[in-house]
Amino acid sequence: MNQITQHTIQVGELATGQALTIPVFTVGEQGDGPHVYIQANMHGAEVQGNAVIYALLEKLKSVPLAGSITLVPYANPIGCNQKSGEFTLGRFDPITGENWNRLYHDHSHLIAEFVTHFKDEPEETIRREFKKRLIEQTQALIGGPQHRLKTGKRIALHLQHLAHQADFVLDLHTGPVSSKHLYCPEYAQESAKHFDIPHTLLIPNEFDGAMDEACFCPWWQLSDAFAAQGRELSTLVEAFTVELGSQEHIDLKEAEHDANSILSYLTHKEVVLGGGYQPRSITRYACYLKDYVAVYAPMGGMVDYHASLGSHVKAGDSLATMLRLDKYSEGEALQPVPFAQDGIAILHFASASVNQGTELYKLFTNYFEL
Amino acid sequence: MNQITQHTIQVGELATGQALTIPVFTVGEQGDGPHVYIQANMHGAEVQGNAVIYALLEKLKSVPLAGSITLVPYANPIGCNQKSGEFTLGRFDPITGENWNRLYHDHSHLIAEFVTHFKDEPEETIRREFKKRLIEQTQALIGGPQHRLKTGKRIALHLQHLAHQADFVLDLHTGPVSSKHLYCPEYAQESAKHFDIPHTLLIPNEFDGAMDEACFCPWWQLSDAFAAQGRELSTLVEAFTVELGSQEHIDLKEAEHDANSILSYLTHKEVVLGGGYQPRSITRYACYLKDYVAVYAPMGGMVDYHASLGSHVKAGDSLATMLRLDKYSEGEALQPVPFAQDGIAILHFASASVNQGTELYKLFTNYFEL
Amino acid sequence: MNQITQHTIQVGELATGQALTIPVFTVGEQGDGPHVYIQANMHGAEVQGNAVIYALLEKLKSVPLAGSITLVPYANPIGCNQKSGEFTLGRFDPITGENWNRLYHDHSHLIAEFVTHFKDEPEETIRREFKKRLIEQTQALIGGPQHRLKTGKRIALHLQHLAHQADFVLDLHTGPVSSKHLYCPEYAQESAKHFDIPHTLLIPNEFDGAMDEACFCPWWQLSDAFAAQGRELSTLVEAFTVELGSQEHIDLKEAEHDANSILSYLTHKEVVLGGGYQPRSITRYACYLKDYVAVYAPMGGMVDYHASLGSHVKAGDSLATMLRLDKYSEGEALQPVPFAQDGIAILHFASASVNQGTELYKLFTNYFEL
Amino acid sequence: MNQITQHTIQVGELATGQALTIPVFTVGEQGDGPHVYIQANMHGAEVQGNAVIYALLEKLKSVPLAGSITLVPYANPIGCNQKSGEFTLGRFDPITGENWNRLYHDHSHLIAEFVTHFKDEPEETIRREFKKRLIEQTQALIGGPQHRLKTGKRIALHLQHLAHQADFVLDLHTGPVSSKHLYCPEYAQESAKHFDIPHTLLIPNEFDGAMDEACFCPWWQLSDAFAAQGRELSTLVEAFTVELGSQEHIDLKEAEHDANSILSYLTHKEVVLGGGYQPRSITRYACYLKDYVAVYAPMGGMVDYHASLGSHVKAGDSLATMLRLDKYSEGEALQPVPFAQDGIAILHFASASVNQGTELYKLFTNYFEL
Repeated sequence: MNQITQHTIQVGELATGQALTIPVFTVGEQGDGPHVYIQANMHGAEVQGNAVIYALLEKLKSVPLAGSITLVPYANPIGCNQKSGEFTLGRFDPITGENWNRLYHDHSHLIAEFVTHFKDEPEETIRREFKKRLIEQTQALIGGPQHRLKTGKRIALHLQHLAHQADFVLDLHTGPVSSKHLYCPEYAQESAKHFDIPHTLLIPNEFDGAMDEACFCPWWQLSDAFAAQGRELSTLVEAFTVELGSQEHIDLKEAEHDANSILSYLTHKEVVLGGGYQPRSITRYACYLKDYVAVYAPMGGMVDYHASLGSHVKAGDSLATMLRLDKYSEGEALQPVPFAQDGIAILHFASASVNQGTELYKLFTNYFEL
Repeated sequence: MNQITQHTIQVGELATGQALTIPVFTVGEQGDGPHVYIQANMHGAEVQGNAVIYALLEKLKSVPLAGSITLVPYANPIGCNQKSGEFTLGRFDPITGENWNRLYHDHSHLIAEFVTHFKDEPEETIRREFKKRLIEQTQALIGGPQHRLKTGKRIALHLQHLAHQADFVLDLHTGPVSSKHLYCPEYAQESAKHFDIPHTLLIPNEFDGAMDEACFCPWWQLSDAFAAQGRELSTLVEAFTVELGSQEHIDLKEAEHDANSILSYLTHKEVVLGGGYQPRSITRYACYLKDYVAVYAPMGGMVDYHASLGSHVKAGDSLATMLRLDKYSEGEALQPVPFAQDGIAILHFASASVNQGTELYKLFTNYFEL
Repeated sequence: MNQITQHTIQVGELATGQALTIPVFTVGEQGDGPHVYIQANMHGAEVQGNAVIYALLEKLKSVPLAGSITLVPYANPIGCNQKSGEFTLGRFDPITGENWNRLYHDHSHLIAEFVTHFKDEPEETIRREFKKRLIEQTQALIGGPQHRLKTGKRIALHLQHLAHQADFVLDLHTGPVSSKHLYCPEYAQESAKHFDIPHTLLIPNEFDGAMDEACFCPWWQLSDAFAAQGRELSTLVEAFTVELGSQEHIDLKEAEHDANSILSYLTHKEVVLGGGYQPRSITRYACYLKDYVAVYAPMGGMVDYHASLGSHVKAGDSLATMLRLDKYSEGEALQPVPFAQDGIAILHFASASVNQGTELYKLFTNYFEL
Repeated sequence: MNQITQHTIQVGELATGQALTIPVFTVGEQGDGPHVYIQANMHGAEVQGNAVIYALLEKLKSVPLAGSITLVPYANPIGCNQKSGEFTLGRFDPITGENWNRLYHDHSHLIAEFVTHFKDEPEETIRREFKKRLIEQTQALIGGPQHRLKTGKRIALHLQHLAHQADFVLDLHTGPVSSKHLYCPEYAQESAKHFDIPHTLLIPNEFDGAMDEACFCPWWQLSDAFAAQGRELSTLVEAFTVELGSQEHIDLKEAEHDANSILSYLTHKEVVLGGGYQPRSITRYACYLKDYVAVYAPMGGMVDYHASLGSHVKAGDSLATMLRLDKYSEGEALQPVPFAQDGIAILHFASASVNQGTELYKLFTNYFEL
């Protein structure tokens, strides 16, 4: 029986002085074993990760652990509580428009000097010392002059500070209306087979401000820098964005499946030592990020989305039909939206009403079995 | 083969001068026969009515008609195009917060004088002359000083001007996540059996600014006023709000069913003379508006809605489970939301994230078979 | 030197479980003397009242008091923190569109029975017992089943519960871009002369859901009900909405003037016993609510507002010029907005960009010196 | 007397099928002379540029021109009409959060091959042919598959297509609450002296998606590329972002001053040949973009901004006072916001209500006279 501790961190303040806080749960001994970091709900409408964290907490109570796990639901206290009509408008800062998941800090400037100093050290030292630097540098930014930190950056840094302490990082998101899929750094492709997720996006070593990138890019760059010095170093940290399905939706049953999937990965990583968590036998498809294609609405209109999520679309198939009653008299009230390639429909827009140029669908192309 | 004509009305202007226009379709001869008015999408996210109007237009091409039908999709050109994130924030004026469907004009002040003048006239004269007054009075407001008309009022008056020309009025809406249901004035209860809609709300003779009320209240009051004079007059106009299901959703297949349902009603009313449109044999439940009960979130939290829509709930059943991870350590992470009465779950909120006091569910209570 | 105590009340919860709280300050002894209630910032963008409460607290430290004063800043913890772009979108519930200041409870149903029971009691008993009923009834609603209370109602009831304990109630608001003005019940016209506010709106005994009405309507109705019984009873409670100027603006200097103005009124009411707070010698204008006229934008466009606030407009004067570049080629790029009556410009819309039908200006007409 | 022609371009469609159009004005002969492009209101709340375009049109009617000028008001028909409360929420796409002024296309990939082909051509050929490429490449993107263009990109490309035809480009913006200032590429510093604008930001050759950068970066890179080949080429196109003051505000009088300022610049550039437009004799300050410093709110609170815009702040001066009534009992209700350097206050946030981390002020530091 593992102990679960709960504490709270403050990541900001509102205009009335109200503190913005986040609950933090920890399971297991923070000793020599591997450490895991799991957060959810950085984007306000993407709530299902909270239910998965609940299911994980319930299961972790009684599972033997080799290390420790930090779990952070409600990761963004502004985004989670930002309503606009029924919708939770929590994808971007309502004041600035900045995507909350593009504000993590890029630590790549640490690499060069670090490699110089530690190029002959044992891997364990490298892991420990580089992790220490990431944590310290993040802490220094948090503790620096407050008038230099914008709202979303402060939230991101507090989370990043927790995440850099981990060897395995999972950022739980959802799409708008979406099938389950995984953002996986190319080097960790093997790990993707241990999640019960049918679709994997393989992403390159490019930092664009997201949590997963903030966690794996420095380590990947570190490997590359050592490789350039002729030393092979395994990439020592893995980080994923797990897309759990659709936004604005809590399903406690489905959350148990997703918790099992995560525990299967953590079993593979030898953090979870029992419980029999194994990946399910499903076909897993992958594609490279450059082959993940968006289809924007070719006209304004109201959309009947008929390519179902996860379905394999043949070149020339119509993904959707757009209704344009203003063109009824011209016989053009219904307009198909064909897709010119073979693909797998991964997600579509959450509303039937779209402007010309709204992102209708995203699809895997040039996909392959994992 | 009926001719369908299409024209456009202007109902406002935006800050850049852009005209706000609405397409208007007419089928059949506007002669002595009854006239029908059908509009959709007054609330921006409630788009399925547009698909139903499309299906109706397609079917009406080849159906014998005794009268004429005016169909108005995209009834609210501001609401339809007001996006906030993926969501269409079109339930209320984004500037003032006013519900777009509470701004129709109350013509009840016309009744007293009208009854005095027409108390001994034949019913046909009463119908024709009262209709004429409603149309003229609405036109007078539209044509009056423009600086007296606020944005939503101008839109409402233009639509109301079209609607008052009709004997049968259907305002197509949807709920947030909702089963199909019908708002039906109490006197027209019999007509509710001709729609393929399992749930009917019987509403009293009270004007609260909605399109259906704006259309039936004056005629109902007219009947009452004649009754007070000792003359029985049937209520000469019927008006309904048809709730087609869930918002933000277009389903062209389902739209055909709903079109059939409307044609069944119009067959009953002898506007549609062929095509064999008959109501389906389903059990129809009704309740009075006073028994239509809202359940507000008893706490803030994230909701797993498990009372399915249309389901019959027993007193004491839990409608939903609320997730509160901040209370995990106290063993109170999951909180049921029980309902104390027997009821039918009609609709629920569109998002899992709710503040304390957000409307979670609406249910029929004290319901009965129609 | 008066003691100031500070405590906190909870008025709701957000989706993450975060408590919505409001700070409450009390000055003076809550004994037999009169009690005053002052709140600010019920509408999120109307922040200047908080600065006035700050100035009042500073001044009240050292002023002899005959009674006690409760001061509540940040009265609406959702509205105060709801940002949309730079703007504080706190005038209405972002989910439902309901104006936060239209959700107070109407206690008029208590009058009839109360008058029957207390018709021959001394005025002091009537004041004490009716006040007690208002407080108890409000408390009963707050303490009733939580699933019956919607978000804004719960906030309103908590504030109303505090306000009903007072004899004098001030609800501090602002307009969009606005001169200072006062909403004053007709019976309290004399009191308006003790504020340093040049414009007074005299409002009738009609409950529309606002705080001031919630406080004075029951007492006014009580007076009327006693009068109908042949007993003259003074109206025992006064309540005002004080419009401090423009929204989105904090001015600590100006707040001192407004604090002085309020202390002048409280000196007149013999709550404040020293400090020499007297009304300034200014001309005060008043009009009846029915003569408070809105001018809606007669077309869409971009507005140069040139009728300055507080200025006296002559019939036919142009209030504003609207820019319509799309009509440049027709020579109609500039369009005046004339006003057909004499009036005083009290407030105008906060943005230059307006739809046709946006409320441009509000003006006093048929005004008179107070 | 110059002829002014007006036509309309379509840049998108809304969900109801409504076309998104922009009016385009042209003055003067599009012959051999220089061409100017001026647009306004890409950000919805930044409307004053429309008034400046109006003033320019009026003045250009009667001024001798050596070339031609295209003027585009209301450049963003979504942003201009996006209201949220009174505010015009037009800084970013309400669906995606993307800043409308960061979506222009980067043509830098054209440089290398162009230089190879044209390295020995005369400057006039280079100007003509490179301009032609920019226009054609932009046109190709507009005319390509519609499902590849997102909403804001399509709008940006249409504007960019017009802008690339010009030698001098002015993008008219405003700050939130702001003094007048100019974004000027470093190489065009001399030109800044011909505007009546007291503050100039000198910006480097880095493309971040804005209109001014989209216009000057390719030409600046071209100069650099030729320089690398040993050939000195003047930078052939100038582009500026002109910040006219505060948002949400139309002032027709002030617009005349700003029009004069622009005509002064165009006189310097020998596009305008008469009218006597000369820069005013004012002190002009400049700083490099790297020295343009943001001060974020060090805590949440409500702000009294007292550093006036354009004022020179000394190191240690307080820019603003933040009100925190929740800290009243601790004696910390008022909190100064000091600035540690000498600077010029250029703009501040538009609302008194700020979260911790909201951008409060932006200031020039290390500034110098131009």
